[in-house]
Amino acid sequence: MSTKPASKVVAPLKDELDIVIPTIRNLDFLEMWRPFFEQYHLIIVQDGDPSKTIRVPEGFDYELYNRNDINRILGPKASCISFKDSACRCFGFLVSKKKYIFTIDDDCFVAKDPSGQDINALAQHIHNLLTPATPFFFNTLYDPYREGADFVRGYPFSLREGAPTAVSHGLWLNIPDYDAPTQLVKPRERNTRYVDAVLTIPKGTLFPMCGMNLAFNRELIGAAMYFGLMGDGQPIGRYDDMWAGWCTKVITDHLGLGVKTGLPYIWHSKASNPFVNLKKEYNGIYWQEEIIPFFQSAVLPKECTTVQKSYIELSKLVKEKLGPIDPYFQKLADAMVTWIEAWDELNSAAVAPVADAAKKDASSSSKK
Amino acid sequence: MSTKPASKVVAPLKDELDIVIPTIRNLDFLEMWRPFFEQYHLIIVQDGDPSKTIRVPEGFDYELYNRNDINRILGPKASCISFKDSACRCFGFLVSKKKYIFTIDDDCFVAKDPSGQDINALAQHIHNLLTPATPFFFNTLYDPYREGADFVRGYPFSLREGAPTAVSHGLWLNIPDYDAPTQLVKPRERNTRYVDAVLTIPKGTLFPMCGMNLAFNRELIGAAMYFGLMGDGQPIGRYDDMWAGWCTKVITDHLGLGVKTGLPYIWHSKASNPFVNLKKEYNGIYWQEEIIPFFQSAVLPKECTTVQKSYIELSKLVKEKLGPIDPYFQKLADAMVTWIEAWDELNSAAVAPVADAAKKDASSSSKK
Repeated sequence: MSTKPASKVVAPLKDELDIVIPTIRNLDFLEMWRPFFEQYHLIIVQDGDPSKTIRVPEGFDYELYNRNDINRILGPKASCISFKDSACRCFGFLVSKKKYIFTIDDDCFVAKDPSGQDINALAQHIHNLLTPATPFFFNTLYDPYREGADFVRGYPFSLREGAPTAVSHGLWLNIPDYDAPTQLVKPRERNTRYVDAVLTIPKGTLFPMCGMNLAFNRELIGAAMYFGLMGDGQPIGRYDDMWAGWCTKVITDHLGLGVKTGLPYIWHSKASNPFVNLKKEYNGIYWQEEIIPFFQSAVLPKECTTVQKSYIELSKLVKEKLGPIDPYFQKLADAMVTWIEAWDELNSAAVAPVADAAKKDASSSSKK
Repeated sequence: MSTKPASKVVAPLKDELDIVIPTIRNLDFLEMWRPFFEQYHLIIVQDGDPSKTIRVPEGFDYELYNRNDINRILGPKASCISFKDSACRCFGFLVSKKKYIFTIDDDCFVAKDPSGQDINALAQHIHNLLTPATPFFFNTLYDPYREGADFVRGYPFSLREGAPTAVSHGLWLNIPDYDAPTQLVKPRERNTRYVDAVLTIPKGTLFPMCGMNLAFNRELIGAAMYFGLMGDGQPIGRYDDMWAGWCTKVITDHLGLGVKTGLPYIWHSKASNPFVNLKKEYNGIYWQEEIIPFFQSAVLPKECTTVQKSYIELSKLVKEKLGPIDPYFQKLADAMVTWIEAWDELNSAAVAPVADAAKKDASSSSKK
């Protein structure tokens, strides 16, 4: 122990957090993250051809699931997990046994802050998750729990305890997360602005949640972090994280939990093809004009005291109110129910050993 | 004209904006603002002893009103303008004939951005006011109308036109705007964090509006910018801007207008005395625990299609719902009505010449 370099990065919550990575390629990007991720456990969800071997750099502790593993573990319920879309990442949330999740895309690298220091994105997410959120009133100096900041004059004292933070949504330097039309119109736009702030998205306000650089408290909100039916065989793509974000925000608002956005930044290296994206997105761009008002006005009954109950109730509303737009939403509403069934099956105390066994099996069969 | 230096600061909207300054002392602080303010018209509201002479640096174009002027111009309606409290600044909003107002305290100086450049706070406010706000959905990359930014993936296209911006709320480096208890607990805390962002406070969310560094569109929201009854003879102080902020936010939300906060920063030089502040604030600290839920749940009827109608309706709700807390709120509700009467009297087209004459008179009698 004493031979370890003093500069070794402290790894908070290392036994309570899984890093979930959806991928179709070798995970060389992990080399850059090594100082920050090496002490954590990774859950890799391999999308696409299960016969392909994904190379993971030496020294990382991981389990890997391909489509065969997903089908084997979930059986008929595997239908709720998307194929050929990064929406498959939510399978990692399902099989994790940890309290916290950080999920990151494999084209995201370590960004630098304005002083030139490498940003430990995971440490910032953990800080965000472990300090309260302020969804009920806006603090003009941003995060009041941050060193050197506080609640400003006029902030009600009864609200200064805040609310438990369920979600920490991080941002991106370099390639911004634009939709296909904006990509097409502004192909050269890069995000160079480092905004040194974390803020709570107020209660009652929806936001576009991006899955590229996202952390959450799995115990508080995990069961709502379902990324929907996207990609192969579905009429829509690139709305997986948006769907999860809308559902999550409605449920965190209902349950009195907080959602933060802002720091940390990662370096997003490569824009995806805008023409391909347009094909995936066009239904979503059209449908969201009705979906957003639906979520803005969705009210859950008081009896929904858990995430699962809230989510099942929301699935009924989706079927009733969005079903008429397109049969896809009826299928999606059914998949939401299947997801909760799978969640409860893998996450109830009684069957935990079974799930663990499945994980070990998958892990040993896939690990290099 | 050609002899003017090329570096002269461009003064946008210089014929459409008044700078309102409440004060009890000589306005030497204007020297530092000279490059940015010199081409604008100032409205100085002298608080306290009207026999005192306020010195204004040479070269500024201004009109000055003391308590005698206020009493003469408003007659019995002068009762709605506070005395011995910076709440008196709203008299300046009342007598202005311009479309935009910027109001600043006389202990606020020019701040520097991280590159060491002087910040032209007024120019940033004008930029904020002239670009739309986004109150209906949160944009994670902050102001989408800023150079180098846009709406992110998942932002509904139908909402990208935004809403007219009614208010631009600026922040403070150095001395943060804390209440007395926080001042007492953290006497040495300074705000050193420059957050390079402007954002819209979402619809339905209240915020603590500080009057130190504030701009607004007088045509859109001026009639709601009433700073209440504070100071001399009142059981409360230092809640003038908070009151205006709560009322303003409820009405902008009702009318589909936007409120922005963030840039620009000013340099706040001096903390006020926390013991004096505590005496002024203690009722407000107690009462706001009921006031905030009141404003959070206040709903204005559809028939209120103007700021004036909305404000009168709000005054009725104040009397009905807050009146039982303390007789003060009944007096305040009446003052709200008086304010609107005064506003309509001074701002209707028919009587504009009268108001102008009064202003000229006040101006010539007070100008150095």
